Amino acid sequence: MIPKLESYNRFVGKKVTKEIRHNAETLQGKHLVHINATPSGGGVAEILNSLVFLMNDVGIDTGWRVLIGSHSFFSLTKKFHNSLQGKKVKLTENRRKIYMEYTKKNSMINHISKHDFVVIHDPQPLGMISHFPNRKKWIWRCHIDISNPHTDTFDFILPFVRQYDCAVVSSNRFKINSLEKPQFIIPPSIDPLAAKNKQISENLANKVLSKHGIDVDKPILSQVARFDPWKGHLGVIKMFKKIKEKMDCQLIFMGDMASDDPQGPILYHRIRQITDKYPDIHTITQRNDLLVNALQKKSAIVFQNSVKEGFGLTVAEAMWKKTPVLGTDVGGIPLQILDGQTGYILKSVSDGVAKSLKILEDNSHRNELGSNAYEHVRKNFLITRHLNDYINMLNTLNSS
Amino acid sequence: MIPKLESYNRFVGKKVTKEIRHNAETLQGKHLVHINATPSGGGVAEILNSLVFLMNDVGIDTGWRVLIGSHSFFSLTKKFHNSLQGKKVKLTENRRKIYMEYTKKNSMINHISKHDFVVIHDPQPLGMISHFPNRKKWIWRCHIDISNPHTDTFDFILPFVRQYDCAVVSSNRFKINSLEKPQFIIPPSIDPLAAKNKQISENLANKVLSKHGIDVDKPILSQVARFDPWKGHLGVIKMFKKIKEKMDCQLIFMGDMASDDPQGPILYHRIRQITDKYPDIHTITQRNDLLVNALQKKSAIVFQNSVKEGFGLTVAEAMWKKTPVLGTDVGGIPLQILDGQTGYILKSVSDGVAKSLKILEDNSHRNELGSNAYEHVRKNFLITRHLNDYINMLNTLNSS
Repeated sequence: MIPKLESYNRFVGKKVTKEIRHNAETLQGKHLVHINATPSGGGVAEILNSLVFLMNDVGIDTGWRVLIGSHSFFSLTKKFHNSLQGKKVKLTENRRKIYMEYTKKNSMINHISKHDFVVIHDPQPLGMISHFPNRKKWIWRCHIDISNPHTDTFDFILPFVRQYDCAVVSSNRFKINSLEKPQFIIPPSIDPLAAKNKQISENLANKVLSKHGIDVDKPILSQVARFDPWKGHLGVIKMFKKIKEKMDCQLIFMGDMASDDPQGPILYHRIRQITDKYPDIHTITQRNDLLVNALQKKSAIVFQNSVKEGFGLTVAEAMWKKTPVLGTDVGGIPLQILDGQTGYILKSVSDGVAKSLKILEDNSHRNELGSNAYEHVRKNFLITRHLNDYINMLNTLNSS
Repeated sequence: MIPKLESYNRFVGKKVTKEIRHNAETLQGKHLVHINATPSGGGVAEILNSLVFLMNDVGIDTGWRVLIGSHSFFSLTKKFHNSLQGKKVKLTENRRKIYMEYTKKNSMINHISKHDFVVIHDPQPLGMISHFPNRKKWIWRCHIDISNPHTDTFDFILPFVRQYDCAVVSSNRFKINSLEKPQFIIPPSIDPLAAKNKQISENLANKVLSKHGIDVDKPILSQVARFDPWKGHLGVIKMFKKIKEKMDCQLIFMGDMASDDPQGPILYHRIRQITDKYPDIHTITQRNDLLVNALQKKSAIVFQNSVKEGFGLTVAEAMWKKTPVLGTDVGGIPLQILDGQTGYILKSVSDGVAKSLKILEDNSHRNELGSNAYEHVRKNFLITRHLNDYINMLNTLNSS
């Protein structure tokens, strides 16, 4: 289904969608293109998969291009990503050269100098701007947590960022102090009509999970995340073992892995070596939309035990299904989880165990957290709010 | 490095590159765009990563776009792929709907009706053609082995294929009998200047492999392939165990996995459960260009024990490093391996063991196979030949 703005009336009300159309009137027929690194998988691609078509629906002629590159380029940009999140990475001459080569190649194959707006997502395509001296408005949309970057990488990217007309970050925490250019705060969002988030029946959810060998009559704890060391799977196993001593339940890990991440399969093997001994821990190595939807809906508790997160939209996804989430205090998680109100912030293994038991043992508390969670997402993290923020930003840029 | 045609003189001679430029004269300034499913990883993206820039270098204004889509879309097109290679897949109404949805979405965000040539690669973007009633020349480039497809899927795609001006397949074996449109045979190719294939010193190769824990003084048998059930890893382990009884050697599996393939990590875990007991079997879960280059160069023997292959360019890559390859009789492998001359076709486990020992025990035989292999690739599977075939095809279309 190609999304239409008015289909969201049932979540946000007619007044909101009417206002969005009104705000977009000044932008009719403007030509905009988004450029990001991956066509699917990962939060950015998921957002664009809704946002791009809603932008078209409100009259902005919106394209979407994806970068091309070699293994070396994408493994390098993964290093950039980690480094901007604080990990030390050596920016060798050869690495700079590879980055500049693909920046140039991607500029050669995309004719975008005449677009009214170009929105560049994250550091991978950032440098393309230097190949378009004759350009209109360019926006750098940074989705990652750059509050504490490794200096070398940050110094390398900053001269590119300065060429943009403005930057957009997801949270006040991620603002770039030294930028001296306008910065907009636009948190990401989920699409309540996407297959992953749309309402499904209890019946269908049970059917889908049973098909994957999950016993739907036993309480489910779960974490939906890539098999990737940043996601804290081993900590979740520790919590689960202690919870399980007090109450019969099961743990489901659901996730794919980035094809360019050598750590993924190794971590998966390590987890399986542990979990193969526990019949109540399941790992499911796929992440199809309906399956994720069903799991988030049917979980008693969802964990998001990340060490670092750009934003962590899987949290909002679970909250949208009225499921309480226990997540760490990183990235955008505390914007979603208001501790004790819409879920709990994980402070330690024993804290996670205590909070989990509290939720598992008190159904009315669980329901209260779940309702608050849903309402918090409805007000703050739906695609309609996101679209409106974009439109307002484009209007501001247009009039400046 | 952005490739220039004349840099290939050292492999194919000045006369060849001059002729290519001459053939391209009629196409100066023509606007062409390639559309495929993935920006990196996989043979198609690797070829485009060279071909697109060489086409620009000879004066064709060539772009490259990549499809966007949800997890469901890409997991569906993976099913299409398998099904066109013969596996039974149920083409439900819902699956057709998802395919048509993303066909439409990708058509909305790419303005390509004015391009002189549009080259659509493989089944994923195939259906886009139906959204461009006003178009110039469209070419469907099919990289997969469709000699024995599952009927339902084939019947679903055929009406799309028929709308194209022509089709291109990799081998005579893959021609579509019922098409009634021009078909060109253009085998794929490798780029001898790409990081994966460029000449590196013995010293550098040793250094790179040692860094990954490989003992470069013990004979290396290897397979570079995704961890994917089509690649026959378990059969290679069987052969290796028998070879190892007669001669001290080691086996290296190097591969990433497709992020959308749930079987990848499970297969990897299964392989590791076996290989963890054998210190002489190593699995390396990355596939960076230099590492692959070094491994193919330093291997005594390379296996390609695939059950199915579109073409199997890893075979040509190893052959280009004068390393004998033992590969199965599927896809494009027998076009590369002329049995007994440029390598060996694998007939059974015991046959593979016998051929491997023959090569390991007779260095002059190994060298002879290696030299023949190199020369066969030089004449038939380099990117320059590929570029010229494209140019000739475009000229034919132009004059028709």
